[in-house]
Amino acid sequence: MTSVDRWLLPDGVEELLPAQAAQVEALRRQLLDLYKRWGYELIIPPMLEYTESLLVGLGSDIDLLTFRVTDQLTGRMMGIRADITPQAARIDAHSLGREGPVRLCYAGSVLHSKPKQPLASRSPIQLGAELYGDNSPASDLEIICLMLETLRVAGLEGITLDTGHVGIYRAVVKAAALNAEQEASYFDILQRKAKTELKLFVASLPVSANVAKQLLELNELHGGEDVLSRGRALFADIPEAVAAIASLEELTSALALRIADIKFYFDLAELRGLHYHTGVVFSALVREHGQALALGGRYDDIGVLFGRARPATGFSVDLKALLELLSPVAEPSAVFAPYDPDPKQWLFVQTLRDAGERVICGLPGQDVDTTCDRLVGKHDGQWCLTPLRD
Amino acid sequence: MTSVDRWLLPDGVEELLPAQAAQVEALRRQLLDLYKRWGYELIIPPMLEYTESLLVGLGSDIDLLTFRVTDQLTGRMMGIRADITPQAARIDAHSLGREGPVRLCYAGSVLHSKPKQPLASRSPIQLGAELYGDNSPASDLEIICLMLETLRVAGLEGITLDTGHVGIYRAVVKAAALNAEQEASYFDILQRKAKTELKLFVASLPVSANVAKQLLELNELHGGEDVLSRGRALFADIPEAVAAIASLEELTSALALRIADIKFYFDLAELRGLHYHTGVVFSALVREHGQALALGGRYDDIGVLFGRARPATGFSVDLKALLELLSPVAEPSAVFAPYDPDPKQWLFVQTLRDAGERVICGLPGQDVDTTCDRLVGKHDGQWCLTPLRD
Repeated sequence: MTSVDRWLLPDGVEELLPAQAAQVEALRRQLLDLYKRWGYELIIPPMLEYTESLLVGLGSDIDLLTFRVTDQLTGRMMGIRADITPQAARIDAHSLGREGPVRLCYAGSVLHSKPKQPLASRSPIQLGAELYGDNSPASDLEIICLMLETLRVAGLEGITLDTGHVGIYRAVVKAAALNAEQEASYFDILQRKAKTELKLFVASLPVSANVAKQLLELNELHGGEDVLSRGRALFADIPEAVAAIASLEELTSALALRIADIKFYFDLAELRGLHYHTGVVFSALVREHGQALALGGRYDDIGVLFGRARPATGFSVDLKALLELLSPVAEPSAVFAPYDPDPKQWLFVQTLRDAGERVICGLPGQDVDTTCDRLVGKHDGQWCLTPLRD
Repeated sequence: MTSVDRWLLPDGVEELLPAQAAQVEALRRQLLDLYKRWGYELIIPPMLEYTESLLVGLGSDIDLLTFRVTDQLTGRMMGIRADITPQAARIDAHSLGREGPVRLCYAGSVLHSKPKQPLASRSPIQLGAELYGDNSPASDLEIICLMLETLRVAGLEGITLDTGHVGIYRAVVKAAALNAEQEASYFDILQRKAKTELKLFVASLPVSANVAKQLLELNELHGGEDVLSRGRALFADIPEAVAAIASLEELTSALALRIADIKFYFDLAELRGLHYHTGVVFSALVREHGQALALGGRYDDIGVLFGRARPATGFSVDLKALLELLSPVAEPSAVFAPYDPDPKQWLFVQTLRDAGERVICGLPGQDVDTTCDRLVGKHDGQWCLTPLRD
């Protein structure tokens, strides 16, 4: 490899240069401050753990996205985290072990061995909030409000909230008595909304005409509010599905009371792919940008793996994905101090910095930095600030 | 693996729970703000790169510390960064490609496949600053001052600055005409300051009595300021070594003029082990804590690998290592809003949060959170704040 290629980054692996890094850092702080005001406590989970801890949904998407390395100290398999949510669940269930509601938030890098979608980053900066210990719709409502507030703080408008409920799919699959293999095919087809394939698949199943209709039409239940009544009619004989639809309706009504300028979109076949969700799932989109900018949902079962079952709901965003929608951070004004070994100049510069000024010290032979608007100079033997003319 | 082990973290891999995470986050912000005031621009390099880009010093410590994974998209070898400095050098040399001095800073996780020292973390949070494009002592001086200021901002006192100059070792080895194998042995012995082993090694070499004396006594050149004059006498016939000692003396004199309360320690055989340093190397220690808390040095050659040779000097700290020396962050006061589905309560809570208050919303059936000091209540049909008595 010549020096010419050494600077090439792998596909989907990005570096953020000063202008972008300043935007991401500013937003990161604004959001963590927002979560603090909502009572969410920051945690910093490690970049790697044993795979058994990270891969909580066996055979899930996350499993395929996780880079694995061998622990040289024990020979055991470790994974570089591809998602922070299971780490937060482990911390809630085990490390904190508190009773009652626990609110946690986090911000950190994750790595994906393959892009999740074409052109997606393999090194997102994941930021999110999770609420543990409460299984009422009130906590889903709080989490969705915080997710929408996250996008508002990021300066985004015209948000569509896309909601679904994994319980509908689960109830329909159970009522249809699909075996594991059939369910895997059905899951995969629904994820891709592949209409023709679905027809062939359902025709191959030994199910009643009613069940076939339910399996087929679940794929069509996406759109405006009428989706809910269509779902209620279609699954009238599956009480769990009806209950899931009811809870979805209750949640979106409560949301509409709180937040005025929001467009709802329902997708009753939304499954999120991560396999760990158990209840409502939700994502937020903006018109100009095709992909979901924030994703979340209820996942009540993860804690069991860490010895304590805890209800859970949460969401996350990728700061890098938000980047192209952010407004630039204004460059702070700066002072230039031409090179002078006088320790008194250094003291003066330190006083300026302590007062919050940005001061760039010139190095021997360096010209005045023209991005600066003021100069450190000498007047009557005293160091002082003078305006910089160009 | 049972659920009982799933929460075990690998040795040297730590999670930070809320109290610690708040400390680390607060310090991270203070330090990045400090670097900004000194004119250092934030960059966010990725967690992984092709190994050719990350491993700039062939066969170095960093090489052994780096976890490797295969890129599923290209089959090429990638590394999870074990150090951010080479990434910053790549960004300066290639991605930015600016002329003149460039100041960069960063904060992020790195991973080490093995602990660097016994009991060291394998998942440090590395934070640092680098100054490119200037080879004068003025930039080493600036970087050391910023390193010391970093520890001052972290609240540390009684700092000892340990300095050395890799040029001394290089000049001595060159004058002794050691071959590659001999040099590797000598390097290794000096790193461990292994006196008896050194005697045997030097006795085995076909060198003059004077050279033997120089090779032996370099190992003893550590301590107070007298080390410099002893070095000057010992290496009088090696001009490069004398020049390196002179530049070290110039640097520490200039430092003493700027910073009063600092203790100097000299170690002319200090090599830092990373193999990429070329000039002065420095580290900062505090009395209560054995290991160096901040490390840095000059490394002028890295940029060549990325197609552009640039002088460089910089330092880094591990936020996790600083953690045990930090003072706790005061828990902000908070307001508790008992569960009430009234959208007017929600509006009131949002007003409080917008004003900077931390407000925890009660969930159905939840008791008043006694960590809060005020309550959201109703007076004459209006939502308001009331003090919380316990």
